[in-house]
Amino acid sequence: MQKSIRKLVKLTLIAILVSAQCWGQGQGGHPASTNIPSAEFPRINSDNSVTFRVQAQQAQTVQLSLGFGQSTYDMVKGTDGYWEVTTKPLAPGFYYYGISADGFIANDPGSRVFFAAQKEVSGLEVPGAESDFFAVKNIPHGTLRTEWYLSKTTGEARRIFVYTPPGYDQSSSRYPVLYLQHGLGEDEAGWGDQGHENFILDNLIATNKAKPMIVVNDNGMAGVHFVPPPAPKPGSPPSSGSIVRFFMDERYATFDKIVTEDLIPFIDHNYRTIPNRNHRALAGLSMGGAQAMRIGLSHLDQFAFIGALSPAIAITDLNKDYDGILADSAKVNQRLRLLWLGIGSDDFLFAPVKQSHEMLEKAGIKHVWVQSSGAHVWTVWRKYLLDFAPRLFQ
Amino acid sequence: MQKSIRKLVKLTLIAILVSAQCWGQGQGGHPASTNIPSAEFPRINSDNSVTFRVQAQQAQTVQLSLGFGQSTYDMVKGTDGYWEVTTKPLAPGFYYYGISADGFIANDPGSRVFFAAQKEVSGLEVPGAESDFFAVKNIPHGTLRTEWYLSKTTGEARRIFVYTPPGYDQSSSRYPVLYLQHGLGEDEAGWGDQGHENFILDNLIATNKAKPMIVVNDNGMAGVHFVPPPAPKPGSPPSSGSIVRFFMDERYATFDKIVTEDLIPFIDHNYRTIPNRNHRALAGLSMGGAQAMRIGLSHLDQFAFIGALSPAIAITDLNKDYDGILADSAKVNQRLRLLWLGIGSDDFLFAPVKQSHEMLEKAGIKHVWVQSSGAHVWTVWRKYLLDFAPRLFQ
Repeated sequence: MQKSIRKLVKLTLIAILVSAQCWGQGQGGHPASTNIPSAEFPRINSDNSVTFRVQAQQAQTVQLSLGFGQSTYDMVKGTDGYWEVTTKPLAPGFYYYGISADGFIANDPGSRVFFAAQKEVSGLEVPGAESDFFAVKNIPHGTLRTEWYLSKTTGEARRIFVYTPPGYDQSSSRYPVLYLQHGLGEDEAGWGDQGHENFILDNLIATNKAKPMIVVNDNGMAGVHFVPPPAPKPGSPPSSGSIVRFFMDERYATFDKIVTEDLIPFIDHNYRTIPNRNHRALAGLSMGGAQAMRIGLSHLDQFAFIGALSPAIAITDLNKDYDGILADSAKVNQRLRLLWLGIGSDDFLFAPVKQSHEMLEKAGIKHVWVQSSGAHVWTVWRKYLLDFAPRLFQ
Repeated sequence: MQKSIRKLVKLTLIAILVSAQCWGQGQGGHPASTNIPSAEFPRINSDNSVTFRVQAQQAQTVQLSLGFGQSTYDMVKGTDGYWEVTTKPLAPGFYYYGISADGFIANDPGSRVFFAAQKEVSGLEVPGAESDFFAVKNIPHGTLRTEWYLSKTTGEARRIFVYTPPGYDQSSSRYPVLYLQHGLGEDEAGWGDQGHENFILDNLIATNKAKPMIVVNDNGMAGVHFVPPPAPKPGSPPSSGSIVRFFMDERYATFDKIVTEDLIPFIDHNYRTIPNRNHRALAGLSMGGAQAMRIGLSHLDQFAFIGALSPAIAITDLNKDYDGILADSAKVNQRLRLLWLGIGSDDFLFAPVKQSHEMLEKAGIKHVWVQSSGAHVWTVWRKYLLDFAPRLFQ
């Protein structure tokens, strides 16, 4: 039995469970909602500063990096071998962060992770009054379905997420569909995991602010022919303009084919959709916004609603961009029932997107223009969905 | 624009994407299926040894820990600042692992994570011939739905996963339901993420080896009254027997109430189930197996099928355990259409489970007994589901 005991103790499961419950005792604040169950750190303090705590017994230097290097904090080693730091007060919202221990950059064992920057990254939710619109309330909830479908374009089974509104299974109604895409380095899980699209829609539908709709998320990184721009070389940093132009000019040929020839037919076949352009929207954030513009404007026969949330676009030439379709404002205005464009004032894409808005104005292309506060972050994109979804299918 | 460029470069997204594609060039083997997209390490070599590689520029000591300390490898620093190690050949299957850099224990940025031991843990799939039964094939796929339902017992919205078989939405048939639970330190996502329950069922159903069924996963760590046993104190390691007895004796009062009063009514109301005991099974692994035995034997009016996969049980007294119900073998044999019990020969719970089997034999309780190879790992539990599911609802 000795061997069994050793194995059992090795698991350390119970020790972890119980000790985790003791860490935070006597501390102020409360664990973040993004913590793993029973983890007492990170803790949100009453002034919205956040205290992080990790174990790194032999490390010489431990740092907290918030938002991919937006701000870095040196952590301080306590007598108990734990490193700790308290940030300045943080604005309510969602933050990615990482821990670096002697140059090893990884996640915080106390937090849930989210897929971003092509890896699993710790997430932190700082709550506030404005968290209410995506809170889990005691109302009917829709379902977020994980589906696998065969793409003829790529020959592979692709994972998608499909939100069906409350009552979908009990109803025989047909519904409009919003195809909603993530950004570069994230994946099809982003709008559910980071964005809380399902709770935003649940809350909007329960208060009759949005039409009940189906929402579909696929993976926009798709396609053997999609190659992101080359990495910046030392000594020759790329201009943000050229990179944004890449994302705008890219035809996303494989992803276009996946969406229009594989995904939409699959959804229309397997869900009770209203399968026409007046009941189909395409939207996305960042790279996904560039895709929504590129694919949407190429298929006005299929989409009457386009949403570009902090998109990686830089419209400069109405006669060339998007094959010149913007020069025919009468046609675009007649076909599109909504073109939604939004960007935050602290977003690194602010300048090219603002310029794109001005070009659309100049061309006489009708669109909703939202110039908000905020940066290139989920905190902003959730609010954009809150603004965008109620305008759909009206 | 300089500020924008700095922010852009800080994101390092593109650099990550492109450089990740270069790491593995010239190396043998192939990236594991559990890697994040485009990560070249860990790599599975032709002899099933696995090469791990992480960056930790200033670290003094970096270690790889496979299976929560089952085996530990010292990693070696290369001239490029990356640490690397190649394991001995590994048996096909699923492994949890962690990286320790100067005492900071975290995940490998190259791998997807899975919830285990109450945290997000890197996972590694070593493929083999026996991976075929959970492979994603070109056959009809079921849907894995994430639902939120209100538990009257706890007053909270609970997340569950519900597998519906291929064709569910297009059919008007009613289906039997398997309630399938995870173990201690894991959660309701385990059977989908680590277990691939949906692909196992898809493959079984496509070959007519299992009846089409609904599978439901809830969170078994539930309940304000559920307190795991105290942590082992230095100098007085607990006997595995006493801990297993705790899990077997625990009434799981809150979770019992959640399952029988909240969850089953929710599922029967919202899905086309056949809502009776002859079409309802309860099963689980480890702690979930103890729960299946405890809750199932307490509610023979509700369940005709019980599955205990590597369960944390130690039956010692037929007149006392489970309120003495096992002493009435006629009743149990009459009510239960299947009692399935399985354990691996390398499992630390082997002795108490084998003894429990012998006690059932002695009592004349009919049951299927599976004594397999393997330890307390998902590699075994996937195979157990493959054996168990075809026996249900026949």
